[in-house]
Amino acid sequence: MKPVNIAIAGLGTVGAGTARVLARNRGEIARRAGREIAVTRALVRDLGRARDCDTKGVTLGDDPLALADDPRVDIIVELMGGESVARDLIMRAIANGKHVVTANKALIARHGNEIFAAARAAGVMVAFEAAVAGGISIIKTIREGLAGNRVLRVAGIINGTCNFILSGMAERNCSFDEMLAEAGQRGYAEADPSLDIDGVDAAHKIVILAAIAFGIPLRHDAVNCEGIRGMSALDMELAADLGFTIKHLGIAARSGDGITIRAHPALVPRRHLIANVAGVMNAILVNGDAVGDTVHYGAGAGAEPTASSVVADIVDVVRALTTDPDNRVPHLAFQPGALADLPVVAREEVETCYYLRLSAMDKPGVLADVTRILAERAISIEAVLQKGRAGDGEGDGGGGRVPVVLLTHRTREKNVDDALRSIAALDSVDDSPVRMRVEYLE
Amino acid sequence: MKPVNIAIAGLGTVGAGTARVLARNRGEIARRAGREIAVTRALVRDLGRARDCDTKGVTLGDDPLALADDPRVDIIVELMGGESVARDLIMRAIANGKHVVTANKALIARHGNEIFAAARAAGVMVAFEAAVAGGISIIKTIREGLAGNRVLRVAGIINGTCNFILSGMAERNCSFDEMLAEAGQRGYAEADPSLDIDGVDAAHKIVILAAIAFGIPLRHDAVNCEGIRGMSALDMELAADLGFTIKHLGIAARSGDGITIRAHPALVPRRHLIANVAGVMNAILVNGDAVGDTVHYGAGAGAEPTASSVVADIVDVVRALTTDPDNRVPHLAFQPGALADLPVVAREEVETCYYLRLSAMDKPGVLADVTRILAERAISIEAVLQKGRAGDGEGDGGGGRVPVVLLTHRTREKNVDDALRSIAALDSVDDSPVRMRVEYLE
Repeated sequence: MKPVNIAIAGLGTVGAGTARVLARNRGEIARRAGREIAVTRALVRDLGRARDCDTKGVTLGDDPLALADDPRVDIIVELMGGESVARDLIMRAIANGKHVVTANKALIARHGNEIFAAARAAGVMVAFEAAVAGGISIIKTIREGLAGNRVLRVAGIINGTCNFILSGMAERNCSFDEMLAEAGQRGYAEADPSLDIDGVDAAHKIVILAAIAFGIPLRHDAVNCEGIRGMSALDMELAADLGFTIKHLGIAARSGDGITIRAHPALVPRRHLIANVAGVMNAILVNGDAVGDTVHYGAGAGAEPTASSVVADIVDVVRALTTDPDNRVPHLAFQPGALADLPVVAREEVETCYYLRLSAMDKPGVLADVTRILAERAISIEAVLQKGRAGDGEGDGGGGRVPVVLLTHRTREKNVDDALRSIAALDSVDDSPVRMRVEYLE
Repeated sequence: MKPVNIAIAGLGTVGAGTARVLARNRGEIARRAGREIAVTRALVRDLGRARDCDTKGVTLGDDPLALADDPRVDIIVELMGGESVARDLIMRAIANGKHVVTANKALIARHGNEIFAAARAAGVMVAFEAAVAGGISIIKTIREGLAGNRVLRVAGIINGTCNFILSGMAERNCSFDEMLAEAGQRGYAEADPSLDIDGVDAAHKIVILAAIAFGIPLRHDAVNCEGIRGMSALDMELAADLGFTIKHLGIAARSGDGITIRAHPALVPRRHLIANVAGVMNAILVNGDAVGDTVHYGAGAGAEPTASSVVADIVDVVRALTTDPDNRVPHLAFQPGALADLPVVAREEVETCYYLRLSAMDKPGVLADVTRILAERAISIEAVLQKGRAGDGEGDGGGGRVPVVLLTHRTREKNVDDALRSIAALDSVDDSPVRMRVEYLE
């Protein structure tokens, strides 16, 4: 059978990695796919630059639409990132009847509904395994491997930069700023790290996972996103004292009234597998009503781990080229006409457990005031931890500040918002208490 | 579109679980698959017995071949177990042009080559995700999700009974016999537990994983299998002292000269994710040249976790019903004409690290004798641990026995065989030294 011709848009880290993997494993890949996969064309910004891959036999060009219009190209592999040009390229490729493979999580999370509708109308496939969790085939696992389940929850470490920073803070007692600098030096963080450390990247990914887990459209409007900027070493230490590790999680869960989609730091019990995922690795817990808990671990980024998922998508697309479009795996796991419009629970109505850390005056009655405020909002307390004085504790006449930590049972976020306003108004408590969610993942 | 009709052969634990999941999640499954999946027929041994599932509308019968011959049945789901009747049923179904889904690991490991050849000739699919690691979609992950990789190693906990016994011994200081009895009481071990505790079940599964990982035929003849029968509490304790946990592993790995396929107990570093998999859970590490290490964790057995994989296979088969057979995912991951015949490294030529435990007389010169014997076989020593006397140590005039543990660097098994023969012949050492492999899984 004749080779399938692909064009790679973007020969940066992931694009060059994909070209390398396709070249190195050419024989095994053809033995699997039943056809050769040939890179015939690539889009680059700077035609003169050196590449991390062999480009012999590859036509290089800098015009995105020329790629999409080339009649000899069967599949466009979009690895350039960004939203505007990538979107134009993909929409044009679809209009030309070409299949698309992409690793672009922002594009899929924000414009996926439109892209998939166009692909459906044109009878082509858009595959995006590499958009979430790099080399972990989590899209395939949820969409196909767990097709018999009603998925109840997806929760996991889906941003390697955050995990590298938090793991280093926990294991090596480094500060947030030290770890962020180290992440930059090692190439784990961009020059502008805000997409990672403010939780935006994880939010894009969990929006995608929520859609395929629950059979809903991509709800980028509905994600509740918090990052780890300025995470305090004191909270890492107090969490450890209580038997927890702080991780940045993406969570999509069904609740009584609908679903929640969130990305934020959380305390995870130290014995949980997820708590033991270190460095830039990712791990995702999927709970289905039949299968129970499953965990999927691997490299969430990097040239070749991401290329691994890109190539798997290419092979899948090659296999389904001749399949009737109605019998292909639907983009969002459920048939497009059968997506549900499940209500999203408002942030303030979401129920979780909380870690609250106050900086309180070390004098009688403070804890009584705080616990009274919580009790009035029906927030019940699981544990209290009061550490020794932050200073040397001598001669401060009762005016020193000490950290007081409370772990709550499950409660609605609005109750916590309300309680924290009242607590911050107490004279004996500093005015910015720390609040983090506790996720037992049970 | 009209429903797909399936017949379930065997309404025991997994068969009834499959019927329950198909009924409970009927709506979601149809929204995914694009068609209703209807159970129209089932094979049972005893027509009068009560079932753990609703059989309304299901034609029950006790003749296997009648199932395979029913023209209204599209897919036969074989969940009866055993080899003889199951094989006849499956071969007849294939001859009749029906697709097959099975959870029967022994049948696939031992007769898969023949079954797949017949299926290929008839243009039908035989899906077997549930044959390995229950609810973990490890076949799909290796065969499709990692299709871009040259897989270098698959290693994992793939027998829940062994893991339940070993975890209990390690965590609760129980004996092997106590844990085996408890496994029986909880339904984790059969009345005859030998398939599990002698490693046969894990051997079947690793044969299947080796085939799809490396693109080789099923090599049931080539697996090296050891169980955990009589595992000693002393070895669990000494392993822990050295920073390891003992787990029963299935391992398929490429080595310089070929491949090895094995199932045996091994010491795993306590910090490795695999070492922290407790109870009946399974976890499988897959290392590919592009993706690096990935780990896949979940329930390896049980009615509904296994049903989860069975239903996923049914949905996959439904989607591929109209696909040209040449474009379906090949049974063994690689195109049937492109399977390689990689040489299997003989047991005695396999290189690993070893844990050796001797019961030696507590007198000078014993360690010198032992280390000289190892040195003569070019076996270098990583660590030595000599514990205090087993008895109270008083008044035994130097004749007491103490455990001496040696961890070796990588060496060939034949060198260890040879060294242990010489060591056992020493007057100062009891004549059955314990030998276990050490797998760093790095």
